[in-house]
Amino acid sequence: MTATVIDGRAVAKEINAVTATQTAALTSQGVIPGLAVIMVGDDPASAIYVRNKERRAGKLQFNSVVKRLPETATQVEVLDLVRHYNQDPAIHGILVQSPLPAHLNEEEVVMTIAPQKDVDGLHPKNLGQLFANVGHQYPVACTPKGIMTLLDRYDVPLAGKQVVMVGRSRLVGKPLVALMNNADATVTLAHRHTHHLAELTKTADVLVVAVGQANLITADMVKPGATVIDVGMNRLADGTLTGDVAAEVANVAGAITPVPGGVGPMTIATLMQQTVQLAAWQTGKQVQ
Amino acid sequence: MTATVIDGRAVAKEINAVTATQTAALTSQGVIPGLAVIMVGDDPASAIYVRNKERRAGKLQFNSVVKRLPETATQVEVLDLVRHYNQDPAIHGILVQSPLPAHLNEEEVVMTIAPQKDVDGLHPKNLGQLFANVGHQYPVACTPKGIMTLLDRYDVPLAGKQVVMVGRSRLVGKPLVALMNNADATVTLAHRHTHHLAELTKTADVLVVAVGQANLITADMVKPGATVIDVGMNRLADGTLTGDVAAEVANVAGAITPVPGGVGPMTIATLMQQTVQLAAWQTGKQVQ
Repeated sequence: MTATVIDGRAVAKEINAVTATQTAALTSQGVIPGLAVIMVGDDPASAIYVRNKERRAGKLQFNSVVKRLPETATQVEVLDLVRHYNQDPAIHGILVQSPLPAHLNEEEVVMTIAPQKDVDGLHPKNLGQLFANVGHQYPVACTPKGIMTLLDRYDVPLAGKQVVMVGRSRLVGKPLVALMNNADATVTLAHRHTHHLAELTKTADVLVVAVGQANLITADMVKPGATVIDVGMNRLADGTLTGDVAAEVANVAGAITPVPGGVGPMTIATLMQQTVQLAAWQTGKQVQ
Repeated sequence: MTATVIDGRAVAKEINAVTATQTAALTSQGVIPGLAVIMVGDDPASAIYVRNKERRAGKLQFNSVVKRLPETATQVEVLDLVRHYNQDPAIHGILVQSPLPAHLNEEEVVMTIAPQKDVDGLHPKNLGQLFANVGHQYPVACTPKGIMTLLDRYDVPLAGKQVVMVGRSRLVGKPLVALMNNADATVTLAHRHTHHLAELTKTADVLVVAVGQANLITADMVKPGATVIDVGMNRLADGTLTGDVAAEVANVAGAITPVPGGVGPMTIATLMQQTVQLAAWQTGKQVQ
């Protein structure tokens, strides 16, 4: 048996088409979705991510602003820029590309973003609302939100199912735990201190891996028929891009996301989708 | 083998003694810890809880205010009262006794409490900070915080251990997941949709149960030697108070909290401990 390949590119394309329609509808009402991306320094991977976001936002005809600050930028300069976009009514989403240079206090930067413009869903208030499952109109981290969209499109049942999340970052693992709990899955959060990881992952109906370690998950660690979501993005010595899940897992899993072409395209598509949503919320417009 | 009984009364007594010393120290610096409890209506169980809190706060010589509103109180009256205490520098902790009468919007009430005075740790911003594990000087829900104190006093190891939390309320289950993850445990959040609960609970080195169903957890559901924390509080037909864990579990577990006398006394002791902590933070004083 070979697993169904979950085609993130195809789903992202559908999402982008809807986002384009919504953008046109908002624009005709005088609201152009505005996304500000702040990048400090010149980390090569970050530069690629930022360029991809810029390109997609441009294609969608957003008001797209990318502010590149030098490696030597001060904390005050970054905070002032965030505060500027907080006040700017033409900007609905603010994203500070991670990682920041070591001399900057990333935590303070995140806490300074107005929660309603926090398009990456990093502000504790937004994570708290998601986990408490209260209120509405708050942004959610784009990668886990995109994963939920994928699972929905592929009709993967979640209520009452065992979900194991390996990796507990603020951008992926923790918000995914909240989303899965809100979907009535029974979710376990595993990390580098977890003992007997293989025993645990083998109980998962849905296994999500976001660690950044090639071949961490092997076929013997996966329950036959499980859905496996690979968030890893590792560059091997020969230049190949690979996830955290070994290729052999496709022989055991029921469905699996490829790397590249799985979760990656969904993250950017979800970022754009959410920017439009924030623009609508902030201006009291409806999107469909 | 019979399990070690985790004596919540004894630990609570120690905590209260420290809180009394800290209160005296703050008071000598002109800061009397101030706790405002708002109760709406006359639910008999709530009335007992509120009276116990009032009594303990009185013994500790807090500035203790209990505001009892009639069942017919309006949303605006409750919100105005919360806002009044938000502004009152003599009040450092605000607690709205749950449940509120059905005609009131509890969510809006919680969101109106100033996060730094949210002594029950219910505000999403506080839950989010706890789960993100960022920042400091924020309140944490008292029951799970008290459970962590108990586990610490009894030297129960957590890092790398399997923890299963049954029940996902905002006051217990969700903050406990965050606390356990921050302590490097591998934590699973189970609830009424969970399939195969017994299989899951049997994997737990530490099992915490907060459901409100007598005898939910039986001996065959517990790993020999596990630590079992029973947050349940159920009144049987004959008037007996019992937890969610059957008595027979004491023959299997390594350590267990009794009901009453386990988690219950810790919740109130932790509430008082945290009120003093909030008073110190809000006034820039130190407590030891």
